[in-house]
Amino acid sequence: MCGIVGVIGKKDTTEILLNGLQKLEYRGYDSAGIYVNDQAGHDYLVKEKGKIAELDKAVGPEVQGTMGIGHTRWATHGEPSHDNAHPQVSASGRFYLVHNGVINNYQDLKAQYLKGVHFVSSTDTEVAVQLIAELVEDGGMDTESAFRKALSLIDGSYAFLLVDREQPDKLFVAKNKSPLLIGVGDGFNVVCSDALAMVAQTKDFVELHDGEMVVVTKDKISITDENNQPVERKPYTVNIDASDISKGTYPYYMLKEIDEQPNVLRRLVSEYMNEDGSFNFDPKLIEALREADKLYIVAAGTSYHAGLVGKPIIEEVAKIPVEVELASEFGYHMPLLSKKPFFIYLTQSGETADSRQVLVKTNALGYPSLTITNVEASTLSREADYTILLHAGPEIAVASTKAYTAQITIEAMLAKALAVVNNVPGAEDFDLKYQLSLAANGMQTIVDAKADLEQLAHEFFANTRNAFYIGRGIDYWASLEASLKLKEVSYIQAEGFAAGELKHGTISLIENGTPVAAIITDKETASHTRGNVQEVEARGAKTLKIVSEDLAKPGDQIVVPTLDTVLSPLVSIVPTQLLAYYATLQRGYNVDQPRNLAKSVTVE
Amino acid sequence: MCGIVGVIGKKDTTEILLNGLQKLEYRGYDSAGIYVNDQAGHDYLVKEKGKIAELDKAVGPEVQGTMGIGHTRWATHGEPSHDNAHPQVSASGRFYLVHNGVINNYQDLKAQYLKGVHFVSSTDTEVAVQLIAELVEDGGMDTESAFRKALSLIDGSYAFLLVDREQPDKLFVAKNKSPLLIGVGDGFNVVCSDALAMVAQTKDFVELHDGEMVVVTKDKISITDENNQPVERKPYTVNIDASDISKGTYPYYMLKEIDEQPNVLRRLVSEYMNEDGSFNFDPKLIEALREADKLYIVAAGTSYHAGLVGKPIIEEVAKIPVEVELASEFGYHMPLLSKKPFFIYLTQSGETADSRQVLVKTNALGYPSLTITNVEASTLSREADYTILLHAGPEIAVASTKAYTAQITIEAMLAKALAVVNNVPGAEDFDLKYQLSLAANGMQTIVDAKADLEQLAHEFFANTRNAFYIGRGIDYWASLEASLKLKEVSYIQAEGFAAGELKHGTISLIENGTPVAAIITDKETASHTRGNVQEVEARGAKTLKIVSEDLAKPGDQIVVPTLDTVLSPLVSIVPTQLLAYYATLQRGYNVDQPRNLAKSVTVE
Repeated sequence: MCGIVGVIGKKDTTEILLNGLQKLEYRGYDSAGIYVNDQAGHDYLVKEKGKIAELDKAVGPEVQGTMGIGHTRWATHGEPSHDNAHPQVSASGRFYLVHNGVINNYQDLKAQYLKGVHFVSSTDTEVAVQLIAELVEDGGMDTESAFRKALSLIDGSYAFLLVDREQPDKLFVAKNKSPLLIGVGDGFNVVCSDALAMVAQTKDFVELHDGEMVVVTKDKISITDENNQPVERKPYTVNIDASDISKGTYPYYMLKEIDEQPNVLRRLVSEYMNEDGSFNFDPKLIEALREADKLYIVAAGTSYHAGLVGKPIIEEVAKIPVEVELASEFGYHMPLLSKKPFFIYLTQSGETADSRQVLVKTNALGYPSLTITNVEASTLSREADYTILLHAGPEIAVASTKAYTAQITIEAMLAKALAVVNNVPGAEDFDLKYQLSLAANGMQTIVDAKADLEQLAHEFFANTRNAFYIGRGIDYWASLEASLKLKEVSYIQAEGFAAGELKHGTISLIENGTPVAAIITDKETASHTRGNVQEVEARGAKTLKIVSEDLAKPGDQIVVPTLDTVLSPLVSIVPTQLLAYYATLQRGYNVDQPRNLAKSVTVE
Repeated sequence: MCGIVGVIGKKDTTEILLNGLQKLEYRGYDSAGIYVNDQAGHDYLVKEKGKIAELDKAVGPEVQGTMGIGHTRWATHGEPSHDNAHPQVSASGRFYLVHNGVINNYQDLKAQYLKGVHFVSSTDTEVAVQLIAELVEDGGMDTESAFRKALSLIDGSYAFLLVDREQPDKLFVAKNKSPLLIGVGDGFNVVCSDALAMVAQTKDFVELHDGEMVVVTKDKISITDENNQPVERKPYTVNIDASDISKGTYPYYMLKEIDEQPNVLRRLVSEYMNEDGSFNFDPKLIEALREADKLYIVAAGTSYHAGLVGKPIIEEVAKIPVEVELASEFGYHMPLLSKKPFFIYLTQSGETADSRQVLVKTNALGYPSLTITNVEASTLSREADYTILLHAGPEIAVASTKAYTAQITIEAMLAKALAVVNNVPGAEDFDLKYQLSLAANGMQTIVDAKADLEQLAHEFFANTRNAFYIGRGIDYWASLEASLKLKEVSYIQAEGFAAGELKHGTISLIENGTPVAAIITDKETASHTRGNVQEVEARGAKTLKIVSEDLAKPGDQIVVPTLDTVLSPLVSIVPTQLLAYYATLQRGYNVDQPRNLAKSVTVE
C-alpha cells in the first residue's frame, strides 16, 4: 500500500510524477500529493484527498520544477484527508517526506523527542519528518546524518523519500521491508515503489536492500549500508512493454485481464513445458522439492486461494503432503513443522509484506524456498532460493484474476514434474498438456459468452445485500475465491462455504431471494452438493449452478468444460470473475479500484 | 435433523407425543404432525406448518388414542408446508410414515416402482410410504416383509416409524445412519430420536444399530438384523434429570446455558482431574494417543471451532501435531494421512451425520478413535473406540455455548495428560488446574456483568446489517466462533477474519459505522491486531475491543481475565455469546430457535 515516486534532473518533473502515481494507483488511492522544486528558488506542495485524477486537477500550470517527490496513499494511521496526505512537512517547512510502511514506535518517538512540537496530521509519517527536522535544527546534525540517525530510532517498515529544501540537488532515500527501486537515466535518476511507474523513463533499475540508505543526484546514486559502508550494485533491465500497462480498447483492466487468461495459460505451457514432456524448471529446484517431506504453501488473499487448490493437485498427482497457510497467521503462530519442510510463497506482486515476514523467518531457520510470482526481481523473488515467474503480464486491476489461474497452472506443472521424477504410479494418466489445452479453450468459450454472464449477474447480484458460494472439495476452494472476487469489487457481503457446513449455523442467513451459487465439478460429491442446494431452496434461496459438462442437468445456468477434477477451478472460476465484474458495474462502482483496497499489500 | 416420537400402550398418547415433540424441537421446527389411533376404529392425522405450538393449537380435544407417531421437521426436500409435513400417508390411506434422514435414490424408486401413483408432497419420504403400500396392496406382501423389502431398495439415511392402520397394535421401526431409540415401559413402549423426548416416561432405553428393523407392541420389542435374524439387546439407563431440561427462571435456554459455563468447567475438573495431578482418563486411550504420530480432529460448526482451538493447545502443550478437519469435507476428500493417525470426533449431540460418515470410514480403515460428546450412548460415542463425556448437561438452545467451552476444556486436559506421560519439557509450567479455576472465576465475572454487554450489543449490533470479528492466532479461532454465534441467532451477516488477512480483499466491505470487534489476548500479536484496528477505523469502522487484562489499554470496552494464551477462548468467547444473545433479542428474534436451523444435524 502507498506508492512512492521521485525524480531528479528532468524538466517535466511534474508530469513524470503524476504519470508515475497513476501507474501506482493500484497501491492505494485515498489521497495523493506531490512536492516539486525548480532548484532556482521556487517550490510547490499540492495534496488532495481522493484519486490521482483529483490531484491532477489541483495542480496548476505554475507547478513546474526539475526535481520532486510524490505519493499515493492507502491509509494505515489516520483517515484519508488533506492533512494526512503525503508529502508530510516538518514544522519548519524545510523537510518534505513521503513514506510507505508503518512506524510501530511513532508514539514513543513523539513522546521522547518531539515534546512541544505542533503536529497537523495523525500520521506516523509526520513523526519521522519532524524527528529529522529536530535532529538538524536543534541537534545541529547535517541532513544525511540526521536521516541516518532517525532510521536507527525507527522501528517499523518504510520506504522513505526525503527532500531538504536547502539541498534541492539531492533526494534522500531509505528502505526497510517496503519495496523501493532506483531507476537509472542519462543525466537524471528516478525513484519508485514499482518499476511500472517509471518504465516510460528508463528500463534500468537498481534494487535496494533492507537497511540501505541512498543519496540520489541527477548524475549519481550513492548507496550505503547500515554501517555507512558504500555498496556497489549493477542495474538490471526490466522486461515490461509499455503497451502491457495500457487498457487498450477495454473499459477496465479487470475485464482485459480476465480475457487474457487463455493466452496466459498457453504462454506458460510454451515457457515451461517441452515437446518431450519434460519441464523447464531449475533441476536444483526439483531436487530440493523431492527432498522435502512436506511442502508449505504460504500466501494471502487470492494467492492463498490458489494455494488451497494447489494442495489437492500436488497431493493427488505427486503424492507429497502439503499444508497451506495464511501468511499473516503463519509468521506468528508456526505449527509444529515436519522434519524437512520446503516453503512455497505465492505472491502476484512479490512484495506482500505478510508473506515476506514469513520468508525472512524461514530463511533464518535455513529452510529452502520457492517464490511463485508475477514480478521479476521483486523482494520475495530475490530473497527466496528459487523463483518461478507467472508470465501473466502486469496485473493492474486490484482484484486479481489472471494471476490466480496462472498460479494454479504453475502448481499443476510442479506436481506433474515431481510425479514424473518420482515415478509416481499413474502419473502418466495425468496428461497436463492436454488438460491445459482443454482449459485454455474452455476459458475462451466462457469469456466469449459475456452477454449471458452479464444477464445472470443482473438477475442474481445487481440488487442483493449478501450472497453465498458453496461447493465441496475442490469446488469449496473455488467458492472461497469466487466469493472474495464478488465481495471485494461489488461490496456484496459474499461468503464461500463448504456446502455441507452451511447447515451448521450459517444457513440461518438464508431468506427469500438470497442468492446461493453452487459450484459442482466433482462427481464424487455432486449429488451431495445438489442436496445442499435443495436445502437452501427449501428456505427460499435463489440458486445459480455452475456445473461441469459431465455433471450438468437441465436448469443448470452455467456449464463449464470438464477437466480433471483437481484442475477444475481453472475454468469454474472464470464465470465467477465475470459475474463479479458485471455486478459491480451494475451497482455503479469502479471495478478496477474498489474502496479501501490496495493491490500490493506491503504492510502487515 | 427432524425429530421422531412414537408411543404404544398409553392412554395419554396425544399429550406424550406433543410433549416429546416439544423436547425435540431443537432438531427442526418448520412443520410438525401427529397420527393417533385409539385401536378401536378411530384415528386422527393433524399436521401444521410452523412450530409445535402451532400443531398444539390445531389438535382438538377429540384427538385421543392409545398409539401414535409424531414428527417435527427440518426440511431437506421440499419447502416447509402442510403437504410436506410428516406423517406422510400412502394414496390408499392405509400407511402412515414419519422419517428422519435423506433418501438419495427417491427419484429412481419413483420412476421404477411408482409410475401412475399420485403424489401430494415433494418429499422423499412420501416415496417410501407409497412404495411400502404398493408392495402390500399390489405385491401381496405382508406389512413387515414389505417394510423390509422397501428398506433393501432404499439408498440413504433414515429413522422410520411406520403405522399400518389395519394393525394398530404394532409400530414398525427401522434405522440407518439417523438416530433412534426404543424406550422400555411397563405395559407400554415408546420410540424417539433422542432420550430427552421420553425421559418423562422412562429412563430405560434400547439403542438400535444401522440396518436393524423392529416391531414394537405395548409389551414387546422384537429387533431383527439385516438378515432377519433376531437380536437381543439389554436396555441401558439414562442419567438425565427432568429439571436439566427445563428453563427454570430463565427467559431462554441460551442464557441459561451461557450462565452454566463456570459450573460446567468446575464439574469437568472434579470428574477428570485428581488431587495428585493425574487424570481420570482410560489409560488405554492415553496409550493409543501416545502411539499416534498425528491427531486428526474432525467436527462441524461450533465443534469445529472448538477443534481449531484444540490444535494450538495440543501442539504447544503436548508437542503432538494436530490437523483439524471439517467433517463434511474430510469424508470425501481425505488428504494424505500420516502413518499412525488417531481420530478425535467432537460432537455435542454425538449424532452429527457429517462426522459419523467419517467415523464409519476411519473405522473401516482400522484407525483408532475417540468421541468427545455431551450425549452418553449416542451413535458416535458407541461407534468410536473411546468416549469422553462433556458433562455439560443437556444443551437445548440451537446455538451451542457451554459445549464449546467444555470441548476446549477436555482438549486441554488431554494435552496436559499427554504432556505428563510423555515427559514433555516444560509441561509442569502449564498448571491446568489453576488455569481452569481462573477461567471459571473469569467466566463468572463476565456473566455477572450482563448489563454492560446488553448495552454494548445495543450500541454495536442492534441495527447493523453486517459485522466482523478479527483476531490473530488463538484470537482468530475465537473470532470464527464469535461470528458464527452472532450470525446464527441474530441473522447479522458476521464474518470472522484473521486480522492480517482482512486487508487482502474483505476490507472493501468496511463502511462508515460497520462494527468490527477485535479479540486481543496474545501479547505476541497484540500490537499488530491493534494496527489492523486502526486500518479499519481509518475507513470508518466502529470498533469494539475484547482484550485480556494484561494487554488492556484505556478505551478497550471489554476486559477479560488473563489466561495462558492458548486457553484464552475459554473467557474471550463468553462476552461474544452474550453480545449475540442480546443483539438477537434487541432485533426481535427467538434466540433459542433461529430460522432454518436444527441443533443436531443428522443429515449430511
